[in-house]
Amino acid sequence: MTVSLTRNYRFVASHRLHLEQLSAEENQRLFGKCNNPYGHGHNYLLSITVKGAVDDQTGLVVSLTGLDTLVQREVLDRYDHRYLNFDVPEFATTPSTTENMAFAIRDHLLREWCSSLGNSAPQLTNVRVQETKRNSVELTLID
Amino acid sequence: MTVSLTRNYRFVASHRLHLEQLSAEENQRLFGKCNNPYGHGHNYLLSITVKGAVDDQTGLVVSLTGLDTLVQREVLDRYDHRYLNFDVPEFATTPSTTENMAFAIRDHLLREWCSSLGNSAPQLTNVRVQETKRNSVELTLID
Amino acid sequence: MTVSLTRNYRFVASHRLHLEQLSAEENQRLFGKCNNPYGHGHNYLLSITVKGAVDDQTGLVVSLTGLDTLVQREVLDRYDHRYLNFDVPEFATTPSTTENMAFAIRDHLLREWCSSLGNSAPQLTNVRVQETKRNSVELTLID
Amino acid sequence: MTVSLTRNYRFVASHRLHLEQLSAEENQRLFGKCNNPYGHGHNYLLSITVKGAVDDQTGLVVSLTGLDTLVQREVLDRYDHRYLNFDVPEFATTPSTTENMAFAIRDHLLREWCSSLGNSAPQLTNVRVQETKRNSVELTLID
Amino acid sequence: MTVSLTRNYRFVASHRLHLEQLSAEENQRLFGKCNNPYGHGHNYLLSITVKGAVDDQTGLVVSLTGLDTLVQREVLDRYDHRYLNFDVPEFATTPSTTENMAFAIRDHLLREWCSSLGNSAPQLTNVRVQETKRNSVELTLID
Amino acid sequence: MTVSLTRNYRFVASHRLHLEQLSAEENQRLFGKCNNPYGHGHNYLLSITVKGAVDDQTGLVVSLTGLDTLVQREVLDRYDHRYLNFDVPEFATTPSTTENMAFAIRDHLLREWCSSLGNSAPQLTNVRVQETKRNSVELTLID
Repeated sequence: MTVSLTRNYRFVASHRLHLEQLSAEENQRLFGKCNNPYGHGHNYLLSITVKGAVDDQTGLVVSLTGLDTLVQREVLDRYDHRYLNFDVPEFATTPSTTENMAFAIRDHLLREWCSSLGNSAPQLTNVRVQETKRNSVELTLID
Repeated sequence: MTVSLTRNYRFVASHRLHLEQLSAEENQRLFGKCNNPYGHGHNYLLSITVKGAVDDQTGLVVSLTGLDTLVQREVLDRYDHRYLNFDVPEFATTPSTTENMAFAIRDHLLREWCSSLGNSAPQLTNVRVQETKRNSVELTLID
Repeated sequence: MTVSLTRNYRFVASHRLHLEQLSAEENQRLFGKCNNPYGHGHNYLLSITVKGAVDDQTGLVVSLTGLDTLVQREVLDRYDHRYLNFDVPEFATTPSTTENMAFAIRDHLLREWCSSLGNSAPQLTNVRVQETKRNSVELTLID
Repeated sequence: MTVSLTRNYRFVASHRLHLEQLSAEENQRLFGKCNNPYGHGHNYLLSITVKGAVDDQTGLVVSLTGLDTLVQREVLDRYDHRYLNFDVPEFATTPSTTENMAFAIRDHLLREWCSSLGNSAPQLTNVRVQETKRNSVELTLID
Repeated sequence: MTVSLTRNYRFVASHRLHLEQLSAEENQRLFGKCNNPYGHGHNYLLSITVKGAVDDQTGLVVSLTGLDTLVQREVLDRYDHRYLNFDVPEFATTPSTTENMAFAIRDHLLREWCSSLGNSAPQLTNVRVQETKRNSVELTLID
Repeated sequence: MTVSLTRNYRFVASHRLHLEQLSAEENQRLFGKCNNPYGHGHNYLLSITVKGAVDDQTGLVVSLTGLDTLVQREVLDRYDHRYLNFDVPEFATTPSTTENMAFAIRDHLLREWCSSLGNSAPQLTNVRVQETKRNSVELTLID
């Protein structure tokens, strides 16, 4: 009686992909327009998937209120309406590629997962970040 | 030469999440607005995934006509334009959470799977129920 | 310097289309499955369009906070997670067709429009209610 | 034999809504999170509608190649992957609200409309800018 | 008490844009890849908008069953799963641009409008044909 | 530090499902309207998923420029704006079902994968072809 539940969240942010240790030409070649000096932005779609046993009585795999509170505090409050390079410590020197954003979101959520969702918390199995309609990145934590 | 095919179906239904054995306060705390006394409803999106070998000659993994007939009879005819609490026996006392709906749909389909789709039927691997743009539940039957 | 701004809101509700003064057969012929005895439901998408002059300084045609507060109180608080036939007075005897919902929403908004949005409020020009991906109704208040 | 054709374009950009002449508190009250100091961004969807007679022979109301070239040069090359406040002159001191972006895009297109699309150019009738799934602004040039 | 209702229909078809009276080079210049010799295809989305008074009793502006029957017979049965150049008489020599498709659909619907929908039929006000997510054409019959 | 990245591509094409070795009746029974003599078409959505380690410095799992170049040359240049039965050798006698299209696309990509993307290329793990909003097929190359 194990099931996966996916819940979607939206946030908007801006960023610039740039590596200090590279030359302007190398940055341009590597990141293209994403290296433009003052940055650009996206409407991000974040999908969180949890997997676990469904409670016999309630028919629920997770408390959506609990999950929403956790994602709001750990992710949306940090990233929403922010310039990732300046406002978010983990992207001060690490480029905020969609790949790195997925890892950082995973870390933020896992750090507070059990203390927020309790002992019966389902497992966090997937973190998916969609940057545009063309691009998304997904982390699979547990197969 | 194994492939997965996903086919989408839509139905509309209403429901109320409520447990008789709990107090009004507990129901409210557990289900929030979904516990409102007269129920509410959704446009559900059901995605059925099958996996199997592709027929050498026809290039098909499943007969869509056969699959549509089965899903129509076993799921849509039961759930579409219904109040799940009163019209659908399995949700008379069990809450029709998206989680429980996915299990019930799986059971309805598996019961008639081989008799409807024949010996060369592909395997039913995933049942996904999307309640709103924010929430969906997926059952993985076979990894 | 006149512009139209459209803002989207979502709510979920259930309803039954039924006229007491008609026979069961007439109701069935008129409303089909939407006449099923215990009702069904939808994820509604409400689009509100306002038209007005853009403020020279702020570059805004309307305060989104003000509009959101008004729509929340006058529409979403009445309709969201409700069974329209029982929970919403205007649909106690009038069928909650998408057409009638659009009129009722217009009336709720217009009644409080100026007192909520102030003297510089833009005009409410369109109320659009989408019931499913196939159906929507739009009221044009001002051409 | 008059018809309207709408063509969609996408670009990504970042911006900050801020007025120098206002205090920090006033800016915060007026623009909320959109006033955050380092800005944020969006995936913008731009919809251009033209209206005109359909050519008897070709069955076309406009050359899509011509329209695409014009929009690319006059809009996308200016706005795509840019920080509107610093990279785009018209938003150096004017806030880049969706309302003001629609006006600026209209002006950029109209300035080069006939020289780009020729004497048989259809009329530009609508400029629509969608900032998020919840918000869009539309300019109607000709009723 | 006048309202507009839009209903969406889907069909799939293939076509080739080509004018016999033009040279190969001119056809290529005019239609680009749409002139490829064996054609290509689309998932079309057809949106029909009607406008009229809402019936006092039923709360409906049009019988959806009646509208569906008309669109099925006059449009979908002609166009769905067809190669427009060979299967559809009106596109034997006239190019099946989205513009011309909108006109042809309008003509098919108007010819049978009153005989199908009765004396109380609402007016057909808009025919919209979406060819891809980037392109659509809309005919406005009545302002 | 392994991650999956999915990138979407669009192409339009037409096809006819038909097997020479079968009778007209058998073809009709097997493929329905998809067997209509002159074919029909679709707006296809192709989703390519790669999985690999994220580069420590750049934060990228794959060069999108490299992936786009490969998909453009190996898939889009062959299929876009084409009649698959006549224009694409692999579908001259094999039916271009979505299932077979997924296999063919996988083969085209794998043949040039390493020579195009280099030694540090991530693995191609999924090829997904969506034919309509109702149907898609997915190949999983590596679990």
